[in-house]
Amino acid sequence: MEGKYDFGLVGLGVMGRNFILNVADNGFTAFGNDLDTEKVDALIAEGGDTNKVNASTDAKVFVDALSAPRKIMLLVPAGKIVDAVIESLLPLLDKDDIIIDGGNSFFTDTDLREAYLQEKGIHFFGAGVSGGAKGARLGPSIMPGGNREAYQHVKPIFEAVSAKYRGEPCVAYLGPKSAGNYVKMVHNGIEYGLMQLTSEIYDLLKKAGDFSNEELSALFSKWNEGRLQSFLVEITSKILTQKDDLTEGHLVDQILDKAKQKGTGKWTSQNAMDLGIPVPSIDIAVSMREISALKAERVRADMLYDRPETKKQDKVELEKWAEEALYFSFIITYAQGLHQLADASNEYGYELDIAIIAKIWRAGCIIRAALLADITEAFQKDRSLPNLLLSPTFVEKVQGTVGSARKLASLAATNGVPLPGITNSLTYFDAYTATRLPLNLIQAQRDYFGSHTYERLDREGIFHTEWEK
Amino acid sequence: MEGKYDFGLVGLGVMGRNFILNVADNGFTAFGNDLDTEKVDALIAEGGDTNKVNASTDAKVFVDALSAPRKIMLLVPAGKIVDAVIESLLPLLDKDDIIIDGGNSFFTDTDLREAYLQEKGIHFFGAGVSGGAKGARLGPSIMPGGNREAYQHVKPIFEAVSAKYRGEPCVAYLGPKSAGNYVKMVHNGIEYGLMQLTSEIYDLLKKAGDFSNEELSALFSKWNEGRLQSFLVEITSKILTQKDDLTEGHLVDQILDKAKQKGTGKWTSQNAMDLGIPVPSIDIAVSMREISALKAERVRADMLYDRPETKKQDKVELEKWAEEALYFSFIITYAQGLHQLADASNEYGYELDIAIIAKIWRAGCIIRAALLADITEAFQKDRSLPNLLLSPTFVEKVQGTVGSARKLASLAATNGVPLPGITNSLTYFDAYTATRLPLNLIQAQRDYFGSHTYERLDREGIFHTEWEK
Repeated sequence: MEGKYDFGLVGLGVMGRNFILNVADNGFTAFGNDLDTEKVDALIAEGGDTNKVNASTDAKVFVDALSAPRKIMLLVPAGKIVDAVIESLLPLLDKDDIIIDGGNSFFTDTDLREAYLQEKGIHFFGAGVSGGAKGARLGPSIMPGGNREAYQHVKPIFEAVSAKYRGEPCVAYLGPKSAGNYVKMVHNGIEYGLMQLTSEIYDLLKKAGDFSNEELSALFSKWNEGRLQSFLVEITSKILTQKDDLTEGHLVDQILDKAKQKGTGKWTSQNAMDLGIPVPSIDIAVSMREISALKAERVRADMLYDRPETKKQDKVELEKWAEEALYFSFIITYAQGLHQLADASNEYGYELDIAIIAKIWRAGCIIRAALLADITEAFQKDRSLPNLLLSPTFVEKVQGTVGSARKLASLAATNGVPLPGITNSLTYFDAYTATRLPLNLIQAQRDYFGSHTYERLDREGIFHTEWEK
Repeated sequence: MEGKYDFGLVGLGVMGRNFILNVADNGFTAFGNDLDTEKVDALIAEGGDTNKVNASTDAKVFVDALSAPRKIMLLVPAGKIVDAVIESLLPLLDKDDIIIDGGNSFFTDTDLREAYLQEKGIHFFGAGVSGGAKGARLGPSIMPGGNREAYQHVKPIFEAVSAKYRGEPCVAYLGPKSAGNYVKMVHNGIEYGLMQLTSEIYDLLKKAGDFSNEELSALFSKWNEGRLQSFLVEITSKILTQKDDLTEGHLVDQILDKAKQKGTGKWTSQNAMDLGIPVPSIDIAVSMREISALKAERVRADMLYDRPETKKQDKVELEKWAEEALYFSFIITYAQGLHQLADASNEYGYELDIAIIAKIWRAGCIIRAALLADITEAFQKDRSLPNLLLSPTFVEKVQGTVGSARKLASLAATNGVPLPGITNSLTYFDAYTATRLPLNLIQAQRDYFGSHTYERLDREGIFHTEWEK
């Protein structure tokens, strides 16, 4: 349509501005909208040719500028702002127009919005976008869910702007309703887990190996050339040698050890509990951020208790254990998150293909890692694999590294250097691979005090015992 | 009021029937109501004198039989049934009558019901009851929340029927709105934690010490004479020697190791995450029930992976470590749950007094334990104690036993016998007592990829860095 723009975007913050410039770089024309005149002007200035990139503070000008069916992406904070933007656009839209929420909306909110907009003839997508500001500009991983037919209109643009893994776009239609938001939520839960793991390995190497920041940076950089290759390992290497502008030393040493959160990791854990799927490596990452926030209590408690001396370890050995334990725990963390996705797919009717999800995480997103290529293959070979640990190709990787996780978990316990992510990954592994767990005793206790009944190993049925008291 | 009954109870299942007989034993007259004629008849038969205990299937007969203000307790399953019973009673009630929900209702449901009934002039209480069927009959711990003045009408009955700890009733007015349900929810979360801990100690002693069921029973029995004295340790001792009616051996060996749950532990974990309070010893207990339920996957996984041989330990040493680690982990689990209660009190306006809560848990309930007398004292000494670990009287108890928790967590990791509750309790302790945690790296990562900003150790303010990439 002459003079009309291919793609609309509401919310011209860093992510929005970068995304729209990315769209324009890939041969599409794009129109932005924001209430803030400065942001609109900044985008126009940066976009160059206004026939390719334009923007307005006026919603009507914005909507009128877009070709049909309109494809309007929202990159605004999750919550009520999303609804407010939808309501302001709604009177201006036509049937079959498409709204794409690119934020981290809670999945049940997306379901409500999709149902509400469907009645009005508008297609609503929840499409998680991962990759940070740089990813938005140069190629993010995009996780869209919604109406499959309507997606065809968005597909060429998303495939063009997304990150590429060996030429393959890191975007795919994932499923109906809030499938996209849900997958992005679990992506972030895994991200919490991996971040916790890198932080505790950094801690242990410093304390038990006296590694300097430079040595650690070099180590993470080396690991990033191997099977641990991943965005988080890569940036950890860079972070560790970043100079501090305000002091002489490294910036990382001056950063307060209170980690914030915006909720997606917490949502992942909470929803996993609703599904009944264990994700202890993610749960503990959420807990550790919470404990970190209790800084004043920690300082008080530290003065009350003695801590064992951290026994120094041979650096070469420690390095080997750390690499293997980190690799092991990364695998376990992905396994938990993907297990949750497989279960959510059944529960919420998402029809997810885990192989496709792993595939579009291979580049662009925060949890991108060499491992995801192997994970993609494992699920391509067996699309109904219940858990990554049951994949024959993963047995060797896990069996070959669990010993170092044991070593580090034991060191952690003995030396008082908490490695909660590695420890919970090991616990999960040891429990998940155990034919028998001692929860027979828990069932006995429940039947003893609450007559909750139990099952038996040796015969079918539901039993209750009048226990001798 | 002549001929009228002091107390009404809807729902004549085991708990309800036992509770009403308990009321009658304590000199009050009570009237029951249930739709099931058999249950009504059974109660009348068991109650003996119908001037003291009576019952009817007819709601009007039931309501008319009660003296004003009516005190009607519901012991029916949580959920829609509670609302249905309330609706059926409502047209028959008078202003200032009192309804007490004795089930495990979710606390926000209780808030909605309380507000709804307040408009109609009816006082609504959520009052958790713990102690199982036996407790209901002989003295449970009761956790009521609601209108303080209205509670005065219920108080004499609840104080009479409740369990007694050295003469003191295990019931107290806890706070407004859903305070009672909330406290009971966290009680159950702690219960999940303690049950998990006993189950894993049982497992370790069997595997690393070759303890027989008889030996274990004797050991738990011995522990129950010491500082570990508690209902769960006591019943574990009895459970371990219960004979199986269907085979030659012990029943515990025939019980399927899939633990069920009714949701209160899960709610505790989920709500703790909403509050931002870490309760990893409870979280992992929920996870372990979930992993236990994945029996078919566990059997498959077990065939794929090798497990280390469990190294046998000296029985005497192992017994000592186990007792100390269990004591340590019990303390940590209570500390987490009580921390959650203190925070919830602020968040929801419950005005909780943790000393009173610990006090009414000393007898009657499932988590009753000698430890609770010490906990009561600690909070009596300092009513604003943020965390039990900061109590001077607990430092010695914790410091004196943490070494054995370290020993067992290390054994667990090395030998592949998961001790998730002990391990997470230790991790929590090591993190909570650390002035510095490595979450500075996580904040750096968040700022690197998402411009989420960070704080510094050396100066005030919010900072963002343009990282070298």
